[in-house]
Amino acid sequence: MKKKITSYWSAICLLIMLSSSLYAQKTTNQKPLIIKEQGAFSAGGTVVKSEGTFDPLKPWNVQQGGQTRHGDHADVFYQIPAKAKHLSMVFLHGYGQSKRSWQTTADGREGFSDIFLRKGYGVYLVDQPGRGAAGQTTKPTQITSIPDDQTWFTQFRIGLYPNFNNGVQFPKDSLSMDNFFRMMTPNTGNVDEVTIVNAMSAVFDKSGEGILFTHSAGGSPGWKTAIKNNRVKAIVAIEPGGFAFPEGEVPEGNRGGKGLPLNEFMKLTKIPIVVYFGDFIPKEEANAASLNFWRNVLATARQWAKVVNAHGGDVTIVHLPEIGIKGNTHFVMSDLNNKEVADVLTKWLKEKGLDK
Amino acid sequence: MKKKITSYWSAICLLIMLSSSLYAQKTTNQKPLIIKEQGAFSAGGTVVKSEGTFDPLKPWNVQQGGQTRHGDHADVFYQIPAKAKHLSMVFLHGYGQSKRSWQTTADGREGFSDIFLRKGYGVYLVDQPGRGAAGQTTKPTQITSIPDDQTWFTQFRIGLYPNFNNGVQFPKDSLSMDNFFRMMTPNTGNVDEVTIVNAMSAVFDKSGEGILFTHSAGGSPGWKTAIKNNRVKAIVAIEPGGFAFPEGEVPEGNRGGKGLPLNEFMKLTKIPIVVYFGDFIPKEEANAASLNFWRNVLATARQWAKVVNAHGGDVTIVHLPEIGIKGNTHFVMSDLNNKEVADVLTKWLKEKGLDK
Repeated sequence: MKKKITSYWSAICLLIMLSSSLYAQKTTNQKPLIIKEQGAFSAGGTVVKSEGTFDPLKPWNVQQGGQTRHGDHADVFYQIPAKAKHLSMVFLHGYGQSKRSWQTTADGREGFSDIFLRKGYGVYLVDQPGRGAAGQTTKPTQITSIPDDQTWFTQFRIGLYPNFNNGVQFPKDSLSMDNFFRMMTPNTGNVDEVTIVNAMSAVFDKSGEGILFTHSAGGSPGWKTAIKNNRVKAIVAIEPGGFAFPEGEVPEGNRGGKGLPLNEFMKLTKIPIVVYFGDFIPKEEANAASLNFWRNVLATARQWAKVVNAHGGDVTIVHLPEIGIKGNTHFVMSDLNNKEVADVLTKWLKEKGLDK
Repeated sequence: MKKKITSYWSAICLLIMLSSSLYAQKTTNQKPLIIKEQGAFSAGGTVVKSEGTFDPLKPWNVQQGGQTRHGDHADVFYQIPAKAKHLSMVFLHGYGQSKRSWQTTADGREGFSDIFLRKGYGVYLVDQPGRGAAGQTTKPTQITSIPDDQTWFTQFRIGLYPNFNNGVQFPKDSLSMDNFFRMMTPNTGNVDEVTIVNAMSAVFDKSGEGILFTHSAGGSPGWKTAIKNNRVKAIVAIEPGGFAFPEGEVPEGNRGGKGLPLNEFMKLTKIPIVVYFGDFIPKEEANAASLNFWRNVLATARQWAKVVNAHGGDVTIVHLPEIGIKGNTHFVMSDLNNKEVADVLTKWLKEKGLDK
């Protein structure tokens, strides 16, 4: 006898079972990854010390004086494939994110780090100081728990909540949305940009020569990491929030801070740089503040590319819809078409001789 | 002309270079790992909602009402080897720690997760709610930055700071100590044990049947995860801080909370459990509070094993020095002899039929 599913909850359960099962089967047709070596380490950071003398015989008391605290480092997970290319890839997340931005997607497909690991690059996934596993800092902070998912859904151009953008390359099922919102993770200390740059430079000391990937808020410390450490041989910036102009050439409203001394800035003209922007960035002033924000960022990116290239640099700005790749959100590297974007990037890497 | 190294700093630099080079070469003789699938996901968690209506056209403002917050989930990184065994291994860290407890060691060798991945187990590394990449919670908190390294050095039985325990299986070089201290990462919310247990149970819903590894403070939610989810087919507990007694049989001073209803407790009698303790736990009352703490924990563990086994259970307590394995700290799974300990555990897994 067949039992008819009549209740709302049974239908919901069935949907969950179906989507879980699809989720689990997504990667089964892939070839296995051959990993020569993998591991985790900390890079950079500072040490502070409290006054007094520590007495190990006293009862457990973290408030006891004479102690150190190691903080402000980056936390790194790395994987080196068999027959690895000379250049590594180092991945720095954006605001409120962690390694996971690059490792996977909201719907559980492979992220950029796995895609390029398969292409033979050693990958170094970073949690910046005060984020994720690099949570221990030397600067205290208050963590709030304000509900803000809809702000990010909108700011990240998935849509104007609750509506998805038309043709958006983002999974709309509730399981994927749930995963996406849970990828956010807070700052665990008041960490400044210099601290992030120092830690990122220390990552390159360990990774060796490589290509720096940045996303969003990771963009600004990314430029400065390349200026600080000449092991950065190229930058792939996905929707960077700020740019590094030379002194005297900073446009109004640039979010990358004041201008850099020319001799520092000039280091950015010595390496190839590509910057990707997704879709839904309006040409004209829009009615949503979030869209105007990105319109301004893209305009600044173009202005910056002109300045760097006028100084002899090699910056390419790719606004993906202009090359026929449509529907991307702010998370270009994990959108539904991330393999298509990776193919575009792979061509650029080859053109620039970065695939050795 | 040879230049004699005379300055203090040159000598320090040389030491760092030498130790970095040793560090980098440690894993080169290993066979490659063959990974069928790897990825990351969130498991479990709650959703809270603020009053009001969200307006996506308004300027960027996380304080705007009508929004949700997804928090209190576990964050999981998993790797499935080619020809994986039926049972997975799920790893839950202890206080102030994250996935890294199991991934690697202070001196950059392979941790338990890699050691058992090589033996054919799928591994699921967890950050519990409010820790590491699972930083987003629904309960705010204040993060301090009190210097407390020496407290943990002592509490974790590496030694009575600044002295290392005699014969301790812990790397004494400054690079390893630096890495070790930087593995600590704070709570990002006031998360209770029920929340951790719910998230861990959700991890097992995704991993399928498996063996739960717990360390230290992970011990107590570990017992309750096994009670909640019958996909937990065995527990390997490394120096658990608390135990789950049945109502009416709780010894004084047990850190695992009040007794459980007998029908819940009885689930712990249906699976094999092994508990490991390291060295430097005194037989008699000691002069250091940290040592007496562990003396009490080990005594409670033995009492608990008697109770579970009297109810028909299968708990083995292994105090490693008693089987000739000496020098272990609280971090048995990442000490210098972690492969030797893994071999002992491998025998137990085989005896209990958990290697299928």
